[in-house]
Amino acid sequence: MFYTIDILGTIAFAISGVLIAINKRMDLFGILIIAFVTAVGGGTLRDLLIGNTPVGWMKDITYTYVILGSSVFAILLRSKINYLRTSLFLFDTIGIGLYTVVGIEKGLNAELHPIICIALGTMTASFGGVIRDILCNEIPVIFRKEIYATACILGGVTYFALREFPIQYNYVFVIAGIVVIVTRLLAVKFKIALPRIYSDKV
Amino acid sequence: MFYTIDILGTIAFAISGVLIAINKRMDLFGILIIAFVTAVGGGTLRDLLIGNTPVGWMKDITYTYVILGSSVFAILLRSKINYLRTSLFLFDTIGIGLYTVVGIEKGLNAELHPIICIALGTMTASFGGVIRDILCNEIPVIFRKEIYATACILGGVTYFALREFPIQYNYVFVIAGIVVIVTRLLAVKFKIALPRIYSDKV
Amino acid sequence: MFYTIDILGTIAFAISGVLIAINKRMDLFGILIIAFVTAVGGGTLRDLLIGNTPVGWMKDITYTYVILGSSVFAILLRSKINYLRTSLFLFDTIGIGLYTVVGIEKGLNAELHPIICIALGTMTASFGGVIRDILCNEIPVIFRKEIYATACILGGVTYFALREFPIQYNYVFVIAGIVVIVTRLLAVKFKIALPRIYSDKV
Repeated sequence: MFYTIDILGTIAFAISGVLIAINKRMDLFGILIIAFVTAVGGGTLRDLLIGNTPVGWMKDITYTYVILGSSVFAILLRSKINYLRTSLFLFDTIGIGLYTVVGIEKGLNAELHPIICIALGTMTASFGGVIRDILCNEIPVIFRKEIYATACILGGVTYFALREFPIQYNYVFVIAGIVVIVTRLLAVKFKIALPRIYSDKV
Repeated sequence: MFYTIDILGTIAFAISGVLIAINKRMDLFGILIIAFVTAVGGGTLRDLLIGNTPVGWMKDITYTYVILGSSVFAILLRSKINYLRTSLFLFDTIGIGLYTVVGIEKGLNAELHPIICIALGTMTASFGGVIRDILCNEIPVIFRKEIYATACILGGVTYFALREFPIQYNYVFVIAGIVVIVTRLLAVKFKIALPRIYSDKV
Repeated sequence: MFYTIDILGTIAFAISGVLIAINKRMDLFGILIIAFVTAVGGGTLRDLLIGNTPVGWMKDITYTYVILGSSVFAILLRSKINYLRTSLFLFDTIGIGLYTVVGIEKGLNAELHPIICIALGTMTASFGGVIRDILCNEIPVIFRKEIYATACILGGVTYFALREFPIQYNYVFVIAGIVVIVTRLLAVKFKIALPRIYSDKV
């Protein structure tokens, strides 16, 4: 079940990487690398920071196959992929819900402070996109206008809040993930974004 | 004592990150991330390279609180922060003095060659700014015009030179740090910079 | 023998870093850093991902000396280095042949899947250049027009194909490396590149 969601998230992340790399006029190799870092970059950074090496995707070849397959699919159908935008957005959103909670639990396993765990969850969900944007020579989009990380942080806070109550573990996991997903869906639907902070004096 | 300096350095680094992120018109999340990487990026890279994981700031939640607090402070007072520029510059300079020596000693603990230790010290002090500039889509400023890393390297050379003499350990630590600080202050005061190397033929 | 090739590759990579950093009008420190990351960046990323820390160049000071020496040489002779372009290209190409196979074997030692090993070999050979380009604020050149990584991948496939046959280990190592080298030489000679994938609709 969770593994299925993980794979769906990986597919959505990989395809988003392919589309951006095509826009940047990269060659086939560049496209595959961008697909890869978008899909596994967040988890890789998390694993490096907590010392969980070799990092996750290296130990389970399934991710590599899924990313390669999704990338070929996205390249071949690139002119028709607009029809899939809604599905991809849903996969992506469900993916970040799952990744957030998975990241939090990796932090708990390493006996880290709840705030650090939430940071790890947010990183897992969002830093693949950050690395993708850096490789494409852009200021990362989540630093500018997406209420993406905020959804992850809210989910993380929910996770630790629920643990204070006598709720069965599985529910904590699922509810926190759903908070991430719903926050993001609502934010996109109602075009909610974090305020930008301007200053003429700085 | 050293912990106090460390915290002052963290504050100065975080605030410098906030100011640059505001100039780049980032949103609140982007600003906090830039504050974070500026403050802990150098130490994180050092810890990753020597295999000291989970990395430092994950094991002591104080850094997180200090960075969040400084960032909120800097955001709220962003139009008045010019009055603090001198204090911030001093904190920052004292911070890099300390970070350089701390980085060197982490290298010694890992039984690395003195030159590698000096590289680790310089990295600890300066790579937070490098990662900040990469995330902001700039060529890192220290590669172009600051005599920043040079101060760290001089301090590192001093550290290993002093160890050849029968000087008490604490003095070695402090003198090396002061060499970093004084070099940087003099360089800024007298506008000394490393030569740029031009070539029309390359 | 392999160590000699490794050093020649390191020299070629460091010099290529120096030339690019000079073009970007960096100062002396920036140039040295770019030389360093170009030369050791790929191996460093590989070592981090598989948890082989402290990373390689920190444990053998020779690399540091070679990189510093090559950089000083390249800076002093920057206006005449065009005469060396062919030699440098050959060193570089032989270097990536070696780095690819070395990376593959580090992956095998960590008991990783052959595909992951090939990815590690390709990374070892090519990501120094990627990090160099990111630090110079460019979209990495190998994502756009070089048949560089492809040569590494072909060499990697050869490596694992040959292991199916009763061939002595040393030959597997050498033949795979030569496949990388010859592929790259042919690609450059005949101006072969991976197709870019365009789309007006994305």
